[in-house]
Amino acid sequence: MYLGIDLGGTHISAGLVNEEGKLLKKTVCKNLVDKSCEEYVKNMIALCQNILDDQGMTISQINSVGIGFPGTPDNEKGTVSCNSSIKINNAPIREEFNKYFDVKVYLENDANCAALSEAVVGAARDCEHSVTITLGTGIGVGIVTNKKVYSGFNNAGSEAGHNILVVDGEKCPCGRRGCWEAYSSAPALKREAVKLLENDKNKTSCMFKMVNNDLSRVDGKIIFEASKQGDVIAQKVVAQYVKYLSEGIANIINVLMPEVLVIGGGISRQGDYLLEMLKSRVYELIYTKNEPKTAIKIAELGVDAGIIGAAMLGR
Amino acid sequence: MYLGIDLGGTHISAGLVNEEGKLLKKTVCKNLVDKSCEEYVKNMIALCQNILDDQGMTISQINSVGIGFPGTPDNEKGTVSCNSSIKINNAPIREEFNKYFDVKVYLENDANCAALSEAVVGAARDCEHSVTITLGTGIGVGIVTNKKVYSGFNNAGSEAGHNILVVDGEKCPCGRRGCWEAYSSAPALKREAVKLLENDKNKTSCMFKMVNNDLSRVDGKIIFEASKQGDVIAQKVVAQYVKYLSEGIANIINVLMPEVLVIGGGISRQGDYLLEMLKSRVYELIYTKNEPKTAIKIAELGVDAGIIGAAMLGR
Repeated sequence: MYLGIDLGGTHISAGLVNEEGKLLKKTVCKNLVDKSCEEYVKNMIALCQNILDDQGMTISQINSVGIGFPGTPDNEKGTVSCNSSIKINNAPIREEFNKYFDVKVYLENDANCAALSEAVVGAARDCEHSVTITLGTGIGVGIVTNKKVYSGFNNAGSEAGHNILVVDGEKCPCGRRGCWEAYSSAPALKREAVKLLENDKNKTSCMFKMVNNDLSRVDGKIIFEASKQGDVIAQKVVAQYVKYLSEGIANIINVLMPEVLVIGGGISRQGDYLLEMLKSRVYELIYTKNEPKTAIKIAELGVDAGIIGAAMLGR
Repeated sequence: MYLGIDLGGTHISAGLVNEEGKLLKKTVCKNLVDKSCEEYVKNMIALCQNILDDQGMTISQINSVGIGFPGTPDNEKGTVSCNSSIKINNAPIREEFNKYFDVKVYLENDANCAALSEAVVGAARDCEHSVTITLGTGIGVGIVTNKKVYSGFNNAGSEAGHNILVVDGEKCPCGRRGCWEAYSSAPALKREAVKLLENDKNKTSCMFKMVNNDLSRVDGKIIFEASKQGDVIAQKVVAQYVKYLSEGIANIINVLMPEVLVIGGGISRQGDYLLEMLKSRVYELIYTKNEPKTAIKIAELGVDAGIIGAAMLGR
């Protein structure tokens, strides 16, 4: 048995996972950001204790605990650095955790945890080399080779979301211009829709009705729904989104050539509607035309991917 | 002892390489393209026999033979597909080779061979994870992790030269628009220089003198030489070249985060002059600012990298 923890900007989730990667029990609490390392760990311990009590177990029955978070781990030192919604620098998470529980603790970036779970029990379970991209506020990318996470010599690699698609292009939150994330994240999708809607003086688009004329409420779900209904503006936005998303995916395939590329995150709920558009475009763009092609699939594990992947770190 | 063969568009080279990756003896012959698989192999065999005779050896004293070529291998079937200066499809190179010599034969893409040699005995010999880019007519990229070539599930990966830098940008020989290769290959460097020189109506640039007013003779060496002499147009061309080259290198580092990134090929002969400009720009562009950084180095093995890497495939 393994415990997996997903330390997110808004919530902390923990789960009990068996050897086969099945999530048996899950608990969640709110995460009030700007906390200290000590407080994050206190919350994690409470969640784990809750699960153990519920199952009538003790920590000695757990093989290992894995913790996923939006940042870079140093697994030798047992420290974590994050610079997003959570801001900690070289925080000694493992040492702090071991004050409460005498158990092996593994640390990993959350996008890598999601990729590992899809590779072990999700959409890429039948192959050795896979890449999972998570389309959300940003673009997370996790690389798995031989069922293990690859993240470079300093654990800071697989940041393909910050690959350039347009030199000197749209500004990215990271500071660089023209990153893939600046075109294919959820905020980028919304930005393009709002831009076109603001120019739609006669309010011809059905999206105005869908958001009650409040453009701040436009989101990916609404844009895709309007597109499916035949809304011209929404279709234009989706076509451009698919164009840039395809270019970024083709870049990943050209370099890493995984057997399966998994698409997760909020936008992936559009399922086959998105997938079919993406596939035909990506297969046109990739360099290798004759060899067997990377399969492109929708993620299977949803919001639990992070917990399951974190738990699987110790397997 | 190992034999390494580099099957190139203009020449075929073969060499005897010891366990430490030292090239002990080398022979070269011209390659008249548009030959059949049988004829390529006949030439390779002649080169190998020449080396064995010279050293008073027989093939039974050779552990294995490695063959590098500009294409994609299928190491299970022992076949090779190339679609560049050499055009063969599913050619049974290993079977053909074994008709003459009863020896283990390994097949690999030439950029991967160059990367392997730099990783074993060249600029990246002291690290586990490295990437070697070869700047020539195209951009070759080889990925080495744990001292082994990584090229994806179908051996067709590591084509980072065909990552997009500018969506809808310059046309690339591969058919896609805006590839890194379309901005950072030797022909791209020449294209930009000629464009500016054609607009230099008063022929202020010293490059006119250097090529005797024959713009078809402009090449990377001349452009960099003029830039070092303070020629304004050459400096502009070099600055733009470094800008795009840096964006492409930053993309590779963001995804793969090698410990060392090695730059080979003709342009790499510019050495420190190029390297210092690249480093300062790349380190500004990469996503990870705090963790230990990828070292950027000039390749050490020059034209022999392909032979040495091919020989090392069987080690």
